[in-house]
Amino acid sequence: MRIKDNETLLFIGDSITDAGRARPVGEGRGLGNGYPLFVDALLTNFYPEKRIRVLNTGVSGDTVRRLADRWQQDVLDHAPDWVSVMIGINDVWRQFDHPLDPSCHVYPEEFRATLERLTADTIPRVRGMALMSPFFIEPRRDDAMRAQVDAYRTIVAETARKYGALFADTQSYFDAMLAHLPSEYLAGDRVHPGHLGHMTAARAFLDAVGFDWSRAPGGSK
Amino acid sequence: MRIKDNETLLFIGDSITDAGRARPVGEGRGLGNGYPLFVDALLTNFYPEKRIRVLNTGVSGDTVRRLADRWQQDVLDHAPDWVSVMIGINDVWRQFDHPLDPSCHVYPEEFRATLERLTADTIPRVRGMALMSPFFIEPRRDDAMRAQVDAYRTIVAETARKYGALFADTQSYFDAMLAHLPSEYLAGDRVHPGHLGHMTAARAFLDAVGFDWSRAPGGSK
Amino acid sequence: MRIKDNETLLFIGDSITDAGRARPVGEGRGLGNGYPLFVDALLTNFYPEKRIRVLNTGVSGDTVRRLADRWQQDVLDHAPDWVSVMIGINDVWRQFDHPLDPSCHVYPEEFRATLERLTADTIPRVRGMALMSPFFIEPRRDDAMRAQVDAYRTIVAETARKYGALFADTQSYFDAMLAHLPSEYLAGDRVHPGHLGHMTAARAFLDAVGFDWSRAPGGSK
Amino acid sequence: MRIKDNETLLFIGDSITDAGRARPVGEGRGLGNGYPLFVDALLTNFYPEKRIRVLNTGVSGDTVRRLADRWQQDVLDHAPDWVSVMIGINDVWRQFDHPLDPSCHVYPEEFRATLERLTADTIPRVRGMALMSPFFIEPRRDDAMRAQVDAYRTIVAETARKYGALFADTQSYFDAMLAHLPSEYLAGDRVHPGHLGHMTAARAFLDAVGFDWSRAPGGSK
Amino acid sequence: MRIKDNETLLFIGDSITDAGRARPVGEGRGLGNGYPLFVDALLTNFYPEKRIRVLNTGVSGDTVRRLADRWQQDVLDHAPDWVSVMIGINDVWRQFDHPLDPSCHVYPEEFRATLERLTADTIPRVRGMALMSPFFIEPRRDDAMRAQVDAYRTIVAETARKYGALFADTQSYFDAMLAHLPSEYLAGDRVHPGHLGHMTAARAFLDAVGFDWSRAPGGSK
Amino acid sequence: MRIKDNETLLFIGDSITDAGRARPVGEGRGLGNGYPLFVDALLTNFYPEKRIRVLNTGVSGDTVRRLADRWQQDVLDHAPDWVSVMIGINDVWRQFDHPLDPSCHVYPEEFRATLERLTADTIPRVRGMALMSPFFIEPRRDDAMRAQVDAYRTIVAETARKYGALFADTQSYFDAMLAHLPSEYLAGDRVHPGHLGHMTAARAFLDAVGFDWSRAPGGSK
Amino acid sequence: MRIKDNETLLFIGDSITDAGRARPVGEGRGLGNGYPLFVDALLTNFYPEKRIRVLNTGVSGDTVRRLADRWQQDVLDHAPDWVSVMIGINDVWRQFDHPLDPSCHVYPEEFRATLERLTADTIPRVRGMALMSPFFIEPRRDDAMRAQVDAYRTIVAETARKYGALFADTQSYFDAMLAHLPSEYLAGDRVHPGHLGHMTAARAFLDAVGFDWSRAPGGSK
Amino acid sequence: MRIKDNETLLFIGDSITDAGRARPVGEGRGLGNGYPLFVDALLTNFYPEKRIRVLNTGVSGDTVRRLADRWQQDVLDHAPDWVSVMIGINDVWRQFDHPLDPSCHVYPEEFRATLERLTADTIPRVRGMALMSPFFIEPRRDDAMRAQVDAYRTIVAETARKYGALFADTQSYFDAMLAHLPSEYLAGDRVHPGHLGHMTAARAFLDAVGFDWSRAPGGSK
Repeated sequence: MRIKDNETLLFIGDSITDAGRARPVGEGRGLGNGYPLFVDALLTNFYPEKRIRVLNTGVSGDTVRRLADRWQQDVLDHAPDWVSVMIGINDVWRQFDHPLDPSCHVYPEEFRATLERLTADTIPRVRGMALMSPFFIEPRRDDAMRAQVDAYRTIVAETARKYGALFADTQSYFDAMLAHLPSEYLAGDRVHPGHLGHMTAARAFLDAVGFDWSRAPGGSK
Repeated sequence: MRIKDNETLLFIGDSITDAGRARPVGEGRGLGNGYPLFVDALLTNFYPEKRIRVLNTGVSGDTVRRLADRWQQDVLDHAPDWVSVMIGINDVWRQFDHPLDPSCHVYPEEFRATLERLTADTIPRVRGMALMSPFFIEPRRDDAMRAQVDAYRTIVAETARKYGALFADTQSYFDAMLAHLPSEYLAGDRVHPGHLGHMTAARAFLDAVGFDWSRAPGGSK
Repeated sequence: MRIKDNETLLFIGDSITDAGRARPVGEGRGLGNGYPLFVDALLTNFYPEKRIRVLNTGVSGDTVRRLADRWQQDVLDHAPDWVSVMIGINDVWRQFDHPLDPSCHVYPEEFRATLERLTADTIPRVRGMALMSPFFIEPRRDDAMRAQVDAYRTIVAETARKYGALFADTQSYFDAMLAHLPSEYLAGDRVHPGHLGHMTAARAFLDAVGFDWSRAPGGSK
Repeated sequence: MRIKDNETLLFIGDSITDAGRARPVGEGRGLGNGYPLFVDALLTNFYPEKRIRVLNTGVSGDTVRRLADRWQQDVLDHAPDWVSVMIGINDVWRQFDHPLDPSCHVYPEEFRATLERLTADTIPRVRGMALMSPFFIEPRRDDAMRAQVDAYRTIVAETARKYGALFADTQSYFDAMLAHLPSEYLAGDRVHPGHLGHMTAARAFLDAVGFDWSRAPGGSK
Repeated sequence: MRIKDNETLLFIGDSITDAGRARPVGEGRGLGNGYPLFVDALLTNFYPEKRIRVLNTGVSGDTVRRLADRWQQDVLDHAPDWVSVMIGINDVWRQFDHPLDPSCHVYPEEFRATLERLTADTIPRVRGMALMSPFFIEPRRDDAMRAQVDAYRTIVAETARKYGALFADTQSYFDAMLAHLPSEYLAGDRVHPGHLGHMTAARAFLDAVGFDWSRAPGGSK
Repeated sequence: MRIKDNETLLFIGDSITDAGRARPVGEGRGLGNGYPLFVDALLTNFYPEKRIRVLNTGVSGDTVRRLADRWQQDVLDHAPDWVSVMIGINDVWRQFDHPLDPSCHVYPEEFRATLERLTADTIPRVRGMALMSPFFIEPRRDDAMRAQVDAYRTIVAETARKYGALFADTQSYFDAMLAHLPSEYLAGDRVHPGHLGHMTAARAFLDAVGFDWSRAPGGSK
Repeated sequence: MRIKDNETLLFIGDSITDAGRARPVGEGRGLGNGYPLFVDALLTNFYPEKRIRVLNTGVSGDTVRRLADRWQQDVLDHAPDWVSVMIGINDVWRQFDHPLDPSCHVYPEEFRATLERLTADTIPRVRGMALMSPFFIEPRRDDAMRAQVDAYRTIVAETARKYGALFADTQSYFDAMLAHLPSEYLAGDRVHPGHLGHMTAARAFLDAVGFDWSRAPGGSK
Repeated sequence: MRIKDNETLLFIGDSITDAGRARPVGEGRGLGNGYPLFVDALLTNFYPEKRIRVLNTGVSGDTVRRLADRWQQDVLDHAPDWVSVMIGINDVWRQFDHPLDPSCHVYPEEFRATLERLTADTIPRVRGMALMSPFFIEPRRDDAMRAQVDAYRTIVAETARKYGALFADTQSYFDAMLAHLPSEYLAGDRVHPGHLGHMTAARAFLDAVGFDWSRAPGGSK
């Protein structure tokens, strides 16, 4: 597993990461009810001897544009060893649910440029960084919004590759679920999952950092 | 994994099982914030094709005595395929936090007799039954209350063996955690864990039913 | 326009009709914030001399099965001149968002039989009856849930024809909107519209009863 | 219809425009429960292809004096294509319900001068502007307050004519309603209508901008 | 003054009497904020030696029809020495603000018959009874609702005369106020006055029972 | 009556004057539930033609020391024609209910000096000023706190005489009540009266300004 | 000390005993904030080895009349070893704060007869019983209400003597405090003390049962 | 008793001292529900003639580090005659319940240095100072957190001795209780006691200042 003893792991993103976390920084029971909480619980149970600290600075409604505004304060100032980012769904969604207000749309060029800048700035300052793809809980790829999310997901993957970050392809984990279960079961609005989908995201992240699911209780293999 | 496709799994117990579940029956987002929620999320992610339904009828403050009063309505009337019970901590705790009121104490004889009766009545009507041990998040076995909890844990183990139920030794999973982490980190009162300890209980249950942690996303191995 | 002076028009249905109406019967400012309110406002403005009374007894979450349970009390006991029913979305939706609990699913046979029975019982007791189709705010007809809604919509249309009720094809009015606007703009969950979609439903109803949009203020033509 | 594709229409006024809108700017479901919401719903349903954006910056209690204080920020800074103003009822009402406090009265000279100034400043910066008359839901013109409202209504009409703005004579639409329905049915205080009267105001506005009520669903004629 | 030492005076009526009183019976600080409170305060200050007890059983929304339903329990069971009734405004108002629902209208014949019956039944059981006229805070007698209220007021006056009850002509006291002050200053809806109008009603009642405004503090003349 | 047409009367004082008034200035229904409300109601009913405006700037807990801090803003800046002050009970009470904290005690010298200064500054700027005595609802003059209140009451009377202000001897009006009624009936803590005692204070004030209780409704004599 | 190991002590009375206790029975942290809580804390600290259980069934507003109605359920059904009663203040107070409503007054004869009956019935069923005097926090014995409370206090003392109950003269303990501190410091209404006066009552009770204040921590002397 | 007439005694500390006190300074009924309230009640009852004033500036969550930040404002600025400090439990607890966040840990060197500095600065400015030991309600001294608390307790004792402050060994008073009663009875988390443990702390403080428990009511010996 890539995360080492006593390291700090910081999650940042939008409402899916936020999930009701405490302010100004989510930690422990203040991590919210989302995938960062599940990651913390699974890391601590499978690797109790590592004593990994998990922080959450997700903010509901964030696009990559807003993320950039608070990156210094909400990522770098915490000096984490690991940073995980999941962003992009609002950048797309606003184009569909607020179609008449272009001021809140973040189009692909800006999305790519901003994400690249944040990644390039951060990689040298941390031990590791993970980019998690945005996802849309809709099985058909020809759905208009799914197609657009997939385009942003590609940008995230390309950015990870370009800068040497880990890439967690959250969408593919959801697609595996959607092969067996209706979209409506996982999320009323196809964007905000309940506990089922947050575990999906947690699993995508953990697999990306080399989590070993076969470890015995107490942390020994 | 012992639980089969389309089966229903019902959790019953005290506040640790309850964990804020919906009334009259917890299901889906109404499962509460405890180990039944984690079990549901992990089962669905690792076995999405099984479509296992999870219910929760835990009630805060319950002893085995109160559990017996509502067993028909809260267990048998739901006709589950699987039943999991975690009970006993309040039977012990009341002896320590309400020492002057013996009317709320449930001593070992009554605990054993009642648990045996419930188990004997239930086993013939279900496909499987799991007894989860109560636990006290205290590493030293000579602590007065830990010693008493261990006595009730033994009764649970013996009852499971006698009637052919599965036994999930939750306490041993917590002991493995306590080898690395302080009790105070897991629970303020050594009884009610946060998400870290609820994942511990979820793991104890899942291991007992033969959960395969090595399955790939989408459920294929 | 088919509705005559001093007649009473009663709307019944599920959450889309309910829309926060007052209990036990919605009327005036207690009609809720949905299409019955819009219908009342448009009828009164275009036909002030008719003094048509509008009632609302929609109940959130209703399927046709539950509608049947309260039909006597919530429709017939009010002795309306006109009854309008919009039902079916929950009959379908539960199959998708609660796939593991068949007890809450209402399949096509039961849907048709119940709706026919209610219509047959009611037609002889009222001056007119309108069946409004359920709708799903999703443009692609090959979407799994849209396809199922369309099947129920056909049943509603066939029932209207069979018993001589008016048929308001709400779905087709939404399809006309979706030719220009994204689904996400009209409803977060594709089921519960905001004011834009409630006006769509109001228009579908009014067209079905022969509303004359060209009337001058004060009601004269 | 005078409003063109992709244009923005901003409503400003007092509590009748405000109607519980969101702050700082009402849009979409934040438009409040008043006539701007109805206008938005009707424009979108009859002209979905136009994609007209509707904003609301009404503030409860406003007189034309207070409107002037926030005109820059709440009108011009939004750079709308169309502006609609309904103001004057509080300018009059305070003379009747706060007769002992002249500091809150706005008399006709000030009303006219201020409204003219705002109109003159705005006309050159927008594609179109509508002045909606204030109204008092009282049928008898010799009522003291109705007479005063009529005087202000005349000022609004004259201002519209002088500067080439559209004039929506809301009062005359209410008078048409009052020929058939009691004042008390439309508004408890003769000032704040419910949904019936808000539809009246919406209709007055829409007629003023050339709304075509005979269009078919989906926007084709 | 007609009310004697240690007597009990009970007020009953609609929302104007209710005025937020305590349940089941208003007394002392539970009298509400209306004219019964003012009557209590003035009686106690001008006649402290009389120790008159004041009760209030007004209920918002009551018509004379509903008053009759609770007369035994809310008037006779308290065995008061004096009863004062103010009723009728809702009997009229519903004809104007709910014109489409005749079930809630109480027309003059029913109003007169019911009031006569209540008065005839009560007079023999009490030391004194006062009928207070309903009032509408509108100066012009040709207003449709004012005209109807005046008709009911006449019925109240005639009933008082026929059965020997005192008559407090509340409307005439309001007319005296309206000669100097706008209706809008006294009540937003012309029905529910603030403290100014409640003092008007209190004065009408007190004059009817022979209150001596010239008494010195402490009760001596 | 000394107060003339169209004059403004401002009440200031402590919690007895405050009585839940609106901020920043109490007027109309925002006058609170105390004697200023009663004065407003009685003035308007007995002298409707005078159109006297009543304001309230009382603040709970105030001593004369705190009154002085806000005198400019809460009295002089409103430019009233008449000012009425009731102060002193907290100056005394704190000596009894907070005996160990001398910092909140205002002793007689400071009380007199401050009240004299406020009065001297104000008299030249207003048409009239009334000083109302503080009161303690306790009949026995040898009660320790009553004796102290009487001392401050004397200071108020002497200050009024010295500067030509009117003096309303509120305490003597309460003493007249207490000759017939128990203290406990008028106030639980002997300081804060209910409606009975607020009418007592209102009467004391009105008598001091020459109120004519014998005027007929409508204001004519 | 008269209370022995493992005995149960039940307090009953009015609001002073109630003090916000839990329902249906106050115990532990549910004892309320009054003297029963202080008694529990002092007994446990000075006599930890005795393990005395303290219960509270006081009810705000109770007179001895209401106490009798619930005596079986709230005293005898708990089978306490010790019962302590403090009652009488409301029996007196209602005569002063509700002087016009004799139905809520309990005069001396009824008070004595009822208290005697309760005591006579209880003494044979318990190990010990204490009657605590009511008290009025007013130093002068010629105060009207103090005089009446003293009369009831005498009845309590005489009843205790007649039936062999312990008598705790709470009033005399308050008189000792009032020799040094103002009444207003101890209670705003002279009836409901804060923590200072509740400790006074606790001390009066403890002295009556022979509490030994000189015991060392841990319970040894 | 060391505290003299009219002196002020200020308590400062963490949540155990805070106990819900009022802001900015706790006094009287604003002292909170903890040991400062009990000390105030006992001092006033046993020494009413001394008129000792008690203040509370405890703040939940404080360590000695945070205490130092507010010492000037929350201790010295009040110029108390006596200061009592109870601090240290959070300095230790954070090492156990937040083991992954060293930034909130206060280790022994810093604890000692800071406490010494505060004590040295304060002793010359007050008449007396008491240092109360932190405590952990756990009987076994080999418990990891108890052992650490004992180490800090030793530092407190040594600091008191070095600077001539009084030392109240609160832990030893709790140990005396724990010889008879389970830890769970006194505190759910072994840190925050209820009323039983707050009386223990109050007693420890009072013994340290020479409180005479044998004094008679009214203060005479």
